[in-house]
Amino acid sequence: MVTGVGGGVTRFKAGDTVGVGYFVGSCRSCDSCGKGNENYCAGVVQTSNGVDHAHGGVPTRGVFSDVIVVNEHYVVRGGVLRRHRRERALRGPRPGRPGADRTAPLLCAGVTVYSPMMRHGLNEAGKHLGVVGLGGLGHVAVKFGKAFGMKVTVISAFGMKVTVISKRQEAIEHLGADEFLISRDPEQMKAATGTMDGIIDTVSAWHPITPLLALLKPLGQMVIVGGPSKPLELPAYAFLPGGKGVAGSLVGSVGDCQAMLEFAGKHGIGAEVVVIKMDYVNTAIERLEKNDVRYRFVIDVAGSLGSAA
Amino acid sequence: MVTGVGGGVTRFKAGDTVGVGYFVGSCRSCDSCGKGNENYCAGVVQTSNGVDHAHGGVPTRGVFSDVIVVNEHYVVRGGVLRRHRRERALRGPRPGRPGADRTAPLLCAGVTVYSPMMRHGLNEAGKHLGVVGLGGLGHVAVKFGKAFGMKVTVISAFGMKVTVISKRQEAIEHLGADEFLISRDPEQMKAATGTMDGIIDTVSAWHPITPLLALLKPLGQMVIVGGPSKPLELPAYAFLPGGKGVAGSLVGSVGDCQAMLEFAGKHGIGAEVVVIKMDYVNTAIERLEKNDVRYRFVIDVAGSLGSAA
Repeated sequence: MVTGVGGGVTRFKAGDTVGVGYFVGSCRSCDSCGKGNENYCAGVVQTSNGVDHAHGGVPTRGVFSDVIVVNEHYVVRGGVLRRHRRERALRGPRPGRPGADRTAPLLCAGVTVYSPMMRHGLNEAGKHLGVVGLGGLGHVAVKFGKAFGMKVTVISAFGMKVTVISKRQEAIEHLGADEFLISRDPEQMKAATGTMDGIIDTVSAWHPITPLLALLKPLGQMVIVGGPSKPLELPAYAFLPGGKGVAGSLVGSVGDCQAMLEFAGKHGIGAEVVVIKMDYVNTAIERLEKNDVRYRFVIDVAGSLGSAA
Repeated sequence: MVTGVGGGVTRFKAGDTVGVGYFVGSCRSCDSCGKGNENYCAGVVQTSNGVDHAHGGVPTRGVFSDVIVVNEHYVVRGGVLRRHRRERALRGPRPGRPGADRTAPLLCAGVTVYSPMMRHGLNEAGKHLGVVGLGGLGHVAVKFGKAFGMKVTVISAFGMKVTVISKRQEAIEHLGADEFLISRDPEQMKAATGTMDGIIDTVSAWHPITPLLALLKPLGQMVIVGGPSKPLELPAYAFLPGGKGVAGSLVGSVGDCQAMLEFAGKHGIGAEVVVIKMDYVNTAIERLEKNDVRYRFVIDVAGSLGSAA
């Protein structure tokens, strides 16, 4: 919610519902900024843990703030949220009508998968999308894929339980995926060879991508949005004979973020979240390390302040 | 030259000048064949060293033949060649007007670089193309890049002499490249960081691609057309933060091949070749192993038969 605007702000006014994504600054003069790809600007300033060189080199702490001062250029409209909130006030919570708590993670996780899906044509009805890893990014990719009218297969290293139900149940029964593949099962993987138009790989730990590339049709595209610290291995035979591609992607532009929010609003897509108060943060981090969350913790900063006051 | 056509052949007649590319068969029913990407058909039959399952599993020996029987579907029009030949007969050889000897290698090397250049938008005037490796494929990529109106930089591991002149001279003075970078020179590479829209990497030996990816602008595309036997290394930091892509590519479709020939004809592009007779083949192979050729040996099969008869 905008509490006030400075001089020269034309796009927003006090009372507007807005969102701020992964970054709050960029050089605005490079080729990337000029083309509306601020996320690929070398001078990008992250919303949290960034250094704002344009303002005296102060560190940014946006995510853990209850208020933030930000250039309007990096702000997206959350009008969709306002409508949801109004409806909720009138009729009570409605399934598939996400509020701010389920929308906030989309400003990072959502745009991180939405942006490359749009750029690589992985947004067309009837195409077959593979989603590797069913975590904070992956589960949103499944929702977007289904909203685009695609066939969606979740590929996971393990079929074991996440919290109380199996990953397969989670993917298919809860998120609406069409199929579930265990990447360590050679038979399952072989049966799916050459069936996918594209893959969004969200896994941050090192993993072999050759078996995943085999799932792609000729000219298929794999997009890596996780960041393993050890180099991935790319054998020529795995991608050259099929003319396949591997691309990286990092969050998305302000424009991507706005378009993603509107798409999510239209299709009732929100992240699956566990809302916590600030004093639960340390426990939450321990749980994150054990992958014990479905799928994102959201800190209710304002609520925490209220309860502490 | 077509010497005769079988029943049902409608596209060609005796006397036509034609070409046959890297393959002489495909299943013609799969998704790749249906989309005109026969080169990505799992049942593709190579022109040489292939096995023609549709005709009793006979091995194919097209490249070393003086005659070949081939389905018209895999034949491209060489009308451009006929015009060149007619001109040559009338006016003698003209520089920049390649004949059959300089055009034959385009049916493999030419389409191998032309096809991914078209597919990945590396055919636009004003864009900056990097060409890694100045061999049979690379030198044709330079010519195509210049004909598209691009800035072309050749990137080579060594600046040493190829035959009698240096690679730099060869690239810039003979082939018309704009710049020459030695990939093992960190200073040169650093100065070119983030300047290229795309790279065609033609090197078949293993080599680090991280320094090459650094040359790309954000969202830049690298295409690998060589096939190192050891897996390439792809660190996340090298391609993820810039949204960069690495794609493989294998020769090109019949349609690509036809379009490439017409483009080459229009711009007077031929491969640089050394024409040899059949009895020189063993020596040629020894020279190939030492990279001692500018850039392709072309065997004059008909001429060899004539001299042996």
